[in-house]
Amino acid sequence: MPRKINIKRSVLAADEEFASKIREKLHKEGTLMVNLIGSPGAGKTTLLETTLGEIPFSCAVIEGDVATSRDAERISKTGTPVVQINTQGGCHLEAHLLWKALDEIPTSGLDVLFVENVGNLVCPAEFDLGEDYKVAVCSVPEGPDKPLKYPHLFHEAGAVVLTKVDLIPYIDFDGDLFWGDVKKLNPLASCIEVASLTGKGIDAWTDLLGRWLMEKRQ
Amino acid sequence: MPRKINIKRSVLAADEEFASKIREKLHKEGTLMVNLIGSPGAGKTTLLETTLGEIPFSCAVIEGDVATSRDAERISKTGTPVVQINTQGGCHLEAHLLWKALDEIPTSGLDVLFVENVGNLVCPAEFDLGEDYKVAVCSVPEGPDKPLKYPHLFHEAGAVVLTKVDLIPYIDFDGDLFWGDVKKLNPLASCIEVASLTGKGIDAWTDLLGRWLMEKRQ
Repeated sequence: MPRKINIKRSVLAADEEFASKIREKLHKEGTLMVNLIGSPGAGKTTLLETTLGEIPFSCAVIEGDVATSRDAERISKTGTPVVQINTQGGCHLEAHLLWKALDEIPTSGLDVLFVENVGNLVCPAEFDLGEDYKVAVCSVPEGPDKPLKYPHLFHEAGAVVLTKVDLIPYIDFDGDLFWGDVKKLNPLASCIEVASLTGKGIDAWTDLLGRWLMEKRQ
Repeated sequence: MPRKINIKRSVLAADEEFASKIREKLHKEGTLMVNLIGSPGAGKTTLLETTLGEIPFSCAVIEGDVATSRDAERISKTGTPVVQINTQGGCHLEAHLLWKALDEIPTSGLDVLFVENVGNLVCPAEFDLGEDYKVAVCSVPEGPDKPLKYPHLFHEAGAVVLTKVDLIPYIDFDGDLFWGDVKKLNPLASCIEVASLTGKGIDAWTDLLGRWLMEKRQ
């Protein structure tokens, strides 16, 4: 179906312009943008909640969901500025939606802008939002076979965060297989294990964010 | 972007023809087709493995994955005929892919054809494969807020199977919230809880499949 491929390209090209505008704006303002991508229930919002309580930077969050504003309500309770985008059925965020949401967030003086993408391990990986880094968020209960089964995201990610490691005693999870496959797909990705509910590993994650922010501002 | 919408419609229309051909073929042969849809790691393959060991019907499986044939290899060990479709990045199965895969599965005399869709709670719900029922597969560790956040699938599903209920002692999961939201979206859906690794609840699921098969053949 070459017809389908052509159209996809032209829509993507239009969206790339918005991604470039976002990249340019955040470059000027020295704001690090991190795009969190993972399955529904991978623990993206809980990771953000804990991160926002620990991180010594000024942050804002853009939440992407098919429906509801539950995640934005959770983030709002941390006192962090947050905007909810509802895609009304759409399976990923696109840059033109982000560009609009940025109207509602003053990025001047902001250190880190987190984007929590729609829960989906496939589609969001293909869309440039103008972010500095995509981060793959994957949870222990999903099983260790996900990197090779959904390779595109893991190949693109600046970091892979394995969440819910506090459940390892109750689940048969082969960590060597998981991290071995991540390394095969992407030898340069930072590899971090966290249990957001207990705080385990969050310091390694916030340290990484700090390094990324310093590199951006150098 | 009306351009995008038009194209989507025409591609869907072409695929609907394949869905109709599949529906007609399986109607003639009295084969029940069940399309399992859920997030990556929701436990679709493990549910199938346990089901195939318990169910008193002749079955076959079509596995849909972005990449790898790991799931087909797992199903193959149960002795059930299985065909793997790799979508090479595609986020859902489409009927024309199924129609091709059916060449490799003799459906004459077959009771139940299971399709395990690509791990994704959003996109596969929008595509008719010619199935009798879509089944939403959702796991306890994903959290109870998924039905309202991803309403389309739950609205369409003939049944909702909540998996990994053996993890409830270790996870804060509000079952009343989960099933309450399912009932709001779809009062007619069958609601089943299973722990595929221990076999808990599998009889309710195979009973439902038996009822669906009888209804189809009446």
